[in-house]
Amino acid sequence: MPLLHDDRLFPADPTTRSIAQRLFATVRDLPIVSPHGHTQAGWFATNDAFPDPSKLFIQPDHYVHRMLYSQGVKLEDLEIGKAVIENPRKVWKIFADHYYLFRGTPSRLWLDYAFQEQFGLTERLSSKTADLYYDTIAEKLQTPEFRPRALFESFKIDVLATTDSAIDPLTDIQTLRKGDWKRRIVPTFRPDSVVDPEFAGFRENIAKLGEITGENTETWEGYLNALRNRRAFFKSLGATATDHGHPTARTADLDPEECAQLFDVILSGEADEDDEEVFRAQMLTEMARMSVEDGLVMQIHPGSMRNHNQILFEKFGRDMGADIPTATDYVHALQPMLDLFGNEANLTVILFTLDETAFSRELAPLAGHYPALRLGPPWWFHDSPEGMMRFRETATETAGFYNTVGFNDDTRAFLSIPARHDVARRIDCAFLARLVAEHRIEEDEAFELAQDLTVNLVKKAYRL
Amino acid sequence: MPLLHDDRLFPADPTTRSIAQRLFATVRDLPIVSPHGHTQAGWFATNDAFPDPSKLFIQPDHYVHRMLYSQGVKLEDLEIGKAVIENPRKVWKIFADHYYLFRGTPSRLWLDYAFQEQFGLTERLSSKTADLYYDTIAEKLQTPEFRPRALFESFKIDVLATTDSAIDPLTDIQTLRKGDWKRRIVPTFRPDSVVDPEFAGFRENIAKLGEITGENTETWEGYLNALRNRRAFFKSLGATATDHGHPTARTADLDPEECAQLFDVILSGEADEDDEEVFRAQMLTEMARMSVEDGLVMQIHPGSMRNHNQILFEKFGRDMGADIPTATDYVHALQPMLDLFGNEANLTVILFTLDETAFSRELAPLAGHYPALRLGPPWWFHDSPEGMMRFRETATETAGFYNTVGFNDDTRAFLSIPARHDVARRIDCAFLARLVAEHRIEEDEAFELAQDLTVNLVKKAYRL
Amino acid sequence: MPLLHDDRLFPADPTTRSIAQRLFATVRDLPIVSPHGHTQAGWFATNDAFPDPSKLFIQPDHYVHRMLYSQGVKLEDLEIGKAVIENPRKVWKIFADHYYLFRGTPSRLWLDYAFQEQFGLTERLSSKTADLYYDTIAEKLQTPEFRPRALFESFKIDVLATTDSAIDPLTDIQTLRKGDWKRRIVPTFRPDSVVDPEFAGFRENIAKLGEITGENTETWEGYLNALRNRRAFFKSLGATATDHGHPTARTADLDPEECAQLFDVILSGEADEDDEEVFRAQMLTEMARMSVEDGLVMQIHPGSMRNHNQILFEKFGRDMGADIPTATDYVHALQPMLDLFGNEANLTVILFTLDETAFSRELAPLAGHYPALRLGPPWWFHDSPEGMMRFRETATETAGFYNTVGFNDDTRAFLSIPARHDVARRIDCAFLARLVAEHRIEEDEAFELAQDLTVNLVKKAYRL
Repeated sequence: MPLLHDDRLFPADPTTRSIAQRLFATVRDLPIVSPHGHTQAGWFATNDAFPDPSKLFIQPDHYVHRMLYSQGVKLEDLEIGKAVIENPRKVWKIFADHYYLFRGTPSRLWLDYAFQEQFGLTERLSSKTADLYYDTIAEKLQTPEFRPRALFESFKIDVLATTDSAIDPLTDIQTLRKGDWKRRIVPTFRPDSVVDPEFAGFRENIAKLGEITGENTETWEGYLNALRNRRAFFKSLGATATDHGHPTARTADLDPEECAQLFDVILSGEADEDDEEVFRAQMLTEMARMSVEDGLVMQIHPGSMRNHNQILFEKFGRDMGADIPTATDYVHALQPMLDLFGNEANLTVILFTLDETAFSRELAPLAGHYPALRLGPPWWFHDSPEGMMRFRETATETAGFYNTVGFNDDTRAFLSIPARHDVARRIDCAFLARLVAEHRIEEDEAFELAQDLTVNLVKKAYRL
Repeated sequence: MPLLHDDRLFPADPTTRSIAQRLFATVRDLPIVSPHGHTQAGWFATNDAFPDPSKLFIQPDHYVHRMLYSQGVKLEDLEIGKAVIENPRKVWKIFADHYYLFRGTPSRLWLDYAFQEQFGLTERLSSKTADLYYDTIAEKLQTPEFRPRALFESFKIDVLATTDSAIDPLTDIQTLRKGDWKRRIVPTFRPDSVVDPEFAGFRENIAKLGEITGENTETWEGYLNALRNRRAFFKSLGATATDHGHPTARTADLDPEECAQLFDVILSGEADEDDEEVFRAQMLTEMARMSVEDGLVMQIHPGSMRNHNQILFEKFGRDMGADIPTATDYVHALQPMLDLFGNEANLTVILFTLDETAFSRELAPLAGHYPALRLGPPWWFHDSPEGMMRFRETATETAGFYNTVGFNDDTRAFLSIPARHDVARRIDCAFLARLVAEHRIEEDEAFELAQDLTVNLVKKAYRL
Repeated sequence: MPLLHDDRLFPADPTTRSIAQRLFATVRDLPIVSPHGHTQAGWFATNDAFPDPSKLFIQPDHYVHRMLYSQGVKLEDLEIGKAVIENPRKVWKIFADHYYLFRGTPSRLWLDYAFQEQFGLTERLSSKTADLYYDTIAEKLQTPEFRPRALFESFKIDVLATTDSAIDPLTDIQTLRKGDWKRRIVPTFRPDSVVDPEFAGFRENIAKLGEITGENTETWEGYLNALRNRRAFFKSLGATATDHGHPTARTADLDPEECAQLFDVILSGEADEDDEEVFRAQMLTEMARMSVEDGLVMQIHPGSMRNHNQILFEKFGRDMGADIPTATDYVHALQPMLDLFGNEANLTVILFTLDETAFSRELAPLAGHYPALRLGPPWWFHDSPEGMMRFRETATETAGFYNTVGFNDDTRAFLSIPARHDVARRIDCAFLARLVAEHRIEEDEAFELAQDLTVNLVKKAYRL
């Protein structure tokens, strides 16, 4: 029996399922447009083989190790944080022993997809099949078909966007540009490290920003110029978007003098929490202002409380599965920025949330009104069958489909890209099928929408 | 192919659908009781023909023009705000060109219903059919069958409540009362303009309130008397309810001296935001107190942040689709008023929300306890198939059906009234059908409930 | 026709329903493990007959009398609060007359289950059948089969946990221990009355705590020792868990000197609301610290605003159906305690909520990360078919099944225990069936999960 059924994620009702099947058949094999994610351009620049199954599937995937950790597995035993995994087979065995924990989670769907579609495995992962899996995957990883570029092609990726620090030299992207392998991999401008005073090394980052750009980043004006400079640099290498991961969605509209004063306080290191929050708020507005000028699409990802687990953070650092969502206000928070730019036809701001209650209450009403706003797909913990379905159910009636922007795979795990798009396409088709079965739209419209959600809206929103 | 399928909005599962069909057959043709809405008594007083399709369908419908605006259509091009539309056919064409935007929204269902049931149109609205639609509708609007009174009758409206400013002379209602056409159109007492210090022209409104009633509205006592006077006047013209649209659900219980002092501060124009909020809070309590006396049912519609888009507000004024919901607390907010009147058998307070999370957390627990409280139907952005279904799913288990009050069409668009009741009846039947199919209630109970939800609970709650 | 259909609560779709039937067949008759509830050990210690139907079904069930109250029934007419009901038949008649109010509520399911399964009634309760019900139930209650111990056995209860004040002498539990009837009834340590300064009689309770334990509870150290002492006493009588019902989930980490000072302020009676909140916060942390030491599982039930209805509280006291949920933050609130103990392998903290929005936003992300955390089942107003289904839908994708702990019946109504477990098992099977029908898990996994959710996870989490 295969790991994956061909009708997975489709509603059980036969009428609805058959509509979903027909819709899915038309989008299943469309190329992947991936406008937001966390893969590394370096993989494609060097095109080295991935070292081993644990390094590939476990170490970079915080969905995986957070679940294992929650059930008592030590991160040390998973060799998390190590550059080279010493006992990859042992790590894999721990994972296999606990694979039942993922029942009912999207990780299970993504992993099974990769196991079956990419490695040809058909028996479920368990203690018993741990070695079979390890050997099969390890062997294939050494073949030319499993090099990053070959996978990129076999995944039928049309565009892949990475996410990069504003002070990243984008060496790998430049290498790729100059090389023979002409696939579209584009950077995304992520300035958190130079606009968030609480970011580790913030002041060093500001100094570095000055060095790279030749601007005096100790003045407000020089700082803004330096950011403009980096945005132009990213744009010259294909970037079409920026990305902003703030604790809240707060924006501000201070006058230039207040900005300059606040910037001095921030740089002095004597800012308090309020100053820092206002500074981030003002910087979202500045980024929007620059987007109006340079046309880069702005993505806002607010509401994650980073590194909730202090002990773990001290031992292992960031991105260890301990970022936890918080309730997020958009209506008051975004108003200063929207007062300035919400009616700009040339601006696109894509809003994300970890607080699903905002979809029907705030985000759909906002995106269903302001020309500059669009709704990003369900993010992070909600990038899942139930989460995606809730998104469509709570956002569509007020914002429609055309104020949404298709799917983001948003992944660090390269091999999960096709699986994630597969899930998203299935859920969209399942939702559309229900609308058709309940005679809320006609089937011809559903076919058009399936195409729009899979490709057209993504390309349009991200200006790809 | 017709625009509307006879089984629309019913679950696809054949067993459940057939139950829904049977239930719906018994309520489909029941008269419409419309206890809350925003149609104009003047239409029926003068009985003039509606001027053109754009004036009828587009201009008054903020659901329609907010969606168009969100996708880049200029309100100027829709001639929003103009007393007479100069190029109604051109406006209609823009609407038709963008009709696909409404896929998956309730507007689509309401509009298609009117197009098919009232104008006999069967081909979907699009760029191609724009003129056909325009001509068909324009022509019919000139016939006697499309005069307001004729439509009122053909819609089988039993009672229609308008919503009227506390200082409105209710001339049209009086004209109707005196005339030969004896249909039940009743006003609703809406005092926002004289109880909310932030309402445009608040102090002028207070002065006018004094003039109309002969009370000295510069004193707290005279002000209360004037309100009592107006409530009696509304009641004498058939009103059974009041309606209150506050930014929050906050209530207060100040002693009379504090009230008098606060009222002075408010009238002085030197009140700050807190004073204004406390004043509104106290006025909700005063309105409840008067309801205990005069028996008018009290409707509270909190949680909308009005005129979020400043630029649009300055250009076009209120009600331009830029009111955005905010998170709303009821538990603490209502306590002062409930402490006073929550246990009054003679009081009915109907609570509405734009924050759906409140249904299972706060509103159903409150309404499932306090004798004075009832739950209003899903409001505004949630007056939609998914929104209505979520309401039943999240409120019924704690509040039951009998602490709810049936449906409000709440519309400014007269032609959407039958469509909106049609959607509400279908969704209620769909929900009841699921309960029957899952053996949570018996079918005989579902038939009784379908009648109750459609007619009996409305009449009882609104004392009609 | 029976009151209950054998397929109740299963999805209508035939494929899904048949999977649900197969799953349910394997768990339907499993023994009941009830790790959290509010039955009284005294019932089993004395084994007296329950006096009459009204005393059994109406008086202790706030779900029942709150609904009646919300629709105008006076609590006086239900003889609520009386030690002996004078007119039990009259009370029963009022209940029967209003039984239609419970349509669509879980109370209806629980009551019908008891009526049919325990009393053999098959015609629906109504005004017409009121006497038949009364007589049938009254008669059976006098038979040996309806004594508490006999019912305990016929319900196939494996373990039953009561909830007991920290200063309760646990006389009944001790009597049971010494007696011949060897069934497992264990206490649960609930210290609200001695850790919440707002609890009625707080200072007297502290004094009593000192008396019972021989500790000087006027000092911080003596107070902590006294609590340790009582925990050990509860543990010696079989307790495996503690339970904490705080207004919020707030925790604190003050240093010992600050604690001692705060404790003095609290005891002085001059504490303000903030002091009281910080004290409760610190006490949650202290309780967690003691749990790390003594291994008692910690249950946190936050977010209920107690006694919202002042008038009712003054007349009838606590637990009159007037406790109302409020929005609840966990992410910031729990951090001080989690910083200290969140990574402890030996600690289990079970989190509950009355704010369902927290499941996908905060609770599943927290429980899917911290080894010490588990998610309690849907609580109170959400212990219902829709509530349970929403819990699985919103929590499983992030926390998985294995960070949940099975079902709590949480009831004061002894006869509702089998009914509540029946509903929970059915809904879990319905959810699992959908996952199987949509090919998200395999059927063999669903069978394993059904067992885990019904028995294994409960026993493991509660260390039974």
